[in-house]
Amino acid sequence: MLAIDKGADAFLYRQVIDLINRNIDDGTLRPGDRLPSLRRMSLSAGVSVPTVRQAYIELERLRRIEARPQSGYYVRHVGGNPMVRPAPSSAGAPGACECRPLMARVYDGINHPNLVPLGIANPCMAKPAAKTLHRTMKRVMARAEERSLGYATTLGEPTLRRQIAFHYLDNAGGRIEPEHICITNGGQEALLLSLLAVAKAGDVIAVETPTYHGLLELIDSLGMLAIEVETCPEEGVVLAELERTLEKHPVKACMFSTTLSNPLGVTMPDEDRRRLVALLEKHGTVLIEDDVYGDLRFDGVRPTPAQFLSNKAKIITCGSFSKTAAPGYRIGWIATDRYMDEITRLKRAFSCSSGLLQQLTLAEFLASGDYARHMKLLRPVLQQNAERMSAMVAEHFPAETRTSKPVGGSVLWLELPGHVNSVKLFDDAIDAGISITPGPIFSPSKRYKHFVRLSYGHPWDERTENAMRWLGRRAHELAA
Amino acid sequence: MLAIDKGADAFLYRQVIDLINRNIDDGTLRPGDRLPSLRRMSLSAGVSVPTVRQAYIELERLRRIEARPQSGYYVRHVGGNPMVRPAPSSAGAPGACECRPLMARVYDGINHPNLVPLGIANPCMAKPAAKTLHRTMKRVMARAEERSLGYATTLGEPTLRRQIAFHYLDNAGGRIEPEHICITNGGQEALLLSLLAVAKAGDVIAVETPTYHGLLELIDSLGMLAIEVETCPEEGVVLAELERTLEKHPVKACMFSTTLSNPLGVTMPDEDRRRLVALLEKHGTVLIEDDVYGDLRFDGVRPTPAQFLSNKAKIITCGSFSKTAAPGYRIGWIATDRYMDEITRLKRAFSCSSGLLQQLTLAEFLASGDYARHMKLLRPVLQQNAERMSAMVAEHFPAETRTSKPVGGSVLWLELPGHVNSVKLFDDAIDAGISITPGPIFSPSKRYKHFVRLSYGHPWDERTENAMRWLGRRAHELAA
Repeated sequence: MLAIDKGADAFLYRQVIDLINRNIDDGTLRPGDRLPSLRRMSLSAGVSVPTVRQAYIELERLRRIEARPQSGYYVRHVGGNPMVRPAPSSAGAPGACECRPLMARVYDGINHPNLVPLGIANPCMAKPAAKTLHRTMKRVMARAEERSLGYATTLGEPTLRRQIAFHYLDNAGGRIEPEHICITNGGQEALLLSLLAVAKAGDVIAVETPTYHGLLELIDSLGMLAIEVETCPEEGVVLAELERTLEKHPVKACMFSTTLSNPLGVTMPDEDRRRLVALLEKHGTVLIEDDVYGDLRFDGVRPTPAQFLSNKAKIITCGSFSKTAAPGYRIGWIATDRYMDEITRLKRAFSCSSGLLQQLTLAEFLASGDYARHMKLLRPVLQQNAERMSAMVAEHFPAETRTSKPVGGSVLWLELPGHVNSVKLFDDAIDAGISITPGPIFSPSKRYKHFVRLSYGHPWDERTENAMRWLGRRAHELAA
Repeated sequence: MLAIDKGADAFLYRQVIDLINRNIDDGTLRPGDRLPSLRRMSLSAGVSVPTVRQAYIELERLRRIEARPQSGYYVRHVGGNPMVRPAPSSAGAPGACECRPLMARVYDGINHPNLVPLGIANPCMAKPAAKTLHRTMKRVMARAEERSLGYATTLGEPTLRRQIAFHYLDNAGGRIEPEHICITNGGQEALLLSLLAVAKAGDVIAVETPTYHGLLELIDSLGMLAIEVETCPEEGVVLAELERTLEKHPVKACMFSTTLSNPLGVTMPDEDRRRLVALLEKHGTVLIEDDVYGDLRFDGVRPTPAQFLSNKAKIITCGSFSKTAAPGYRIGWIATDRYMDEITRLKRAFSCSSGLLQQLTLAEFLASGDYARHMKLLRPVLQQNAERMSAMVAEHFPAETRTSKPVGGSVLWLELPGHVNSVKLFDDAIDAGISITPGPIFSPSKRYKHFVRLSYGHPWDERTENAMRWLGRRAHELAA
């Protein structure tokens, strides 16, 4: 038992600090948890609000807790080693993706039911909006009746395209015409159609390294070649290196994620976005901007897609509701004022149109404000999960482990000690009932052999914690 | 007023015949309508059941009505000119699809809202199972809750794959393992993945002529070349010509519809299917079998997909629920015991997976028997629509017009007098608020300039009849 002792010598605010510290040390309060409000703490500890405030401010200065605007104070995860900037490298050569067999193995594992799902980047499942979406869909079925079973038009339901256009205006300060939006079967089909609208077999496509493995499999399936561009954990693509790559190789298009890249979680600063766009303009190179995580920054700040930074650069932006609302709806989109004829033709040829009922449902979900409310609930859950997972890595994984510092999204990127084989860790984890994503599939040349990506995009529970402890133990064994 | 006169000289059954004939002649009974049952007619006309039966049998002999098993007697559409067999032609050369701009124009027209939709092949919308499907989906949402928002696995929901496998066993007498089924975004993505699993840019693909325009756009988009094989209105692909084509050209795959081809509506006889399979085996050529209309024969008889006729031939069968249940669900499938690794990889790279909620809903729709019940209701409606549309063509279109004789599906293929420009008719029809499909897009070399396809896959109403009359009138003008 520990209580504030008003008769003690120590300042009252010091006693409050001590109380909080002990709760953090013994795990009662854990990274990501919200502290009691000032008023509540004042009542329960029997001290004044200014005393509690003084204690919280001091704890914030000590970096044990952090204030989040309009939300309160949260326990910080401190410690862990940050990722380091890549050493300047001689740019690689364009090459075919080497990880076909490994990719198949990883998906076999991830698709296995009943695993602890640390292998799937699935942010919205941390707090699914199932009730609201189900209710909305039922309303749509009642209203649209037979029509809701029919074909959507090739480019998609006009009401949804208007809502997406409005969302860009409202959140990212950019204007895109609804006529310049094509609804797709998830973000993946958006990337497919964009890529094929501007490139063909044999063409060279520049990608970040590490990059989303789905991009690599796509480039590979279309017979194109990938070239890796170094990416740093603070600013994303290293622009000097991109420039060298564009000068040396006939790059047809860049496929970059400008906000919350996967797996590194980096958001390109505005200044760099402008430089990127200028560079692409200069070389006439197309940018396919993978923006599926754009709405998922913990601070709710929506960076401006590169799309809106230039009228001259050739930019195609790909978005999706799979990361924010409903992966199973398979609704994504392409936003671009170029290539629409090509994209329309490809969409028609490849899948006719996308699911109408889901489009009508999402249009209403956005229009009603339910989407915005859902995002406000989802972001803090993801942030809490991120803190918890980072803390568990610091506690249970080998000391040399380096981690990304997520500011959004649902994944943590880990660099394990150099001789840990992450594919071995993946195989063992699957056997132990846990899915993770091994590093090599995030690079066409199979770098990142001692890296893994862990997802916190699911409700955090006992199973997750046991899985994290198991992974830490196994990583120690493999490092020994 | 006309009633049976028991005192008259004429035989009673002759009087019944006369009664029916007059009702048909004055349009009270129209092609596709069901006659009163024997018992009902006996009661209303005041004659015995055997007398009515004798009258109906005589009317059947005269081809004015036809008996349908377990259903009753129906007014036949008589007249109209049948399609003729194509003249033996020298096989064409492989070529790129020439109809890109026209295809875009046609879809722009078809996608226009509020047109009389004679341009979309959409059988199930003639009698949509909206109530049942909505009810089923609500049950699924209540039961699967949050899970129903999540990603399906790459190959699709196991319960649905089992139901599809069972459906083949139950209806087409063939066995396919659920593990050899991949759920796709409609039949169109099934065709895409199948094609790319076996062929690449520059390869030659054999197609029927006329053939489904979506196939041609797909072949074109992938940079492949199409070669046309003559098709006859009774047996489908002319096998002798296919053999010459396979001998002369390096055909990588054939994309044929073996049941209710689109637009011709022909079903390849069993004997021809076996010969086709043997021929492909001999040449080692892949068959991509477009089987999306397989369940839609008016007589309910399900021909055996070529898939089940050989263990040695390389056959990929593509199916879909878009034509039978819900176009907007975007759920189709690939069934094949070959190429599954390639297909899995492509499915993952192109669209991750297909919509889960729709998959769960369709699985239950099949398992509950609702699908079978729905098909029993849908088929007679389509058949009635087909008869009505054929009758209106015979009545309102130029006398030389030839038509297909649909035995299933939802489209009628019309050959207008030789100098009628069907693209002109299409343009004028759009202006008049009617969508139709002009013939040239059914051939890579833009044949069929005086052909059109009309769809009867929608509820038949006054608007449809006015549209048919308008089209007939305009065809007369263009023929003059």
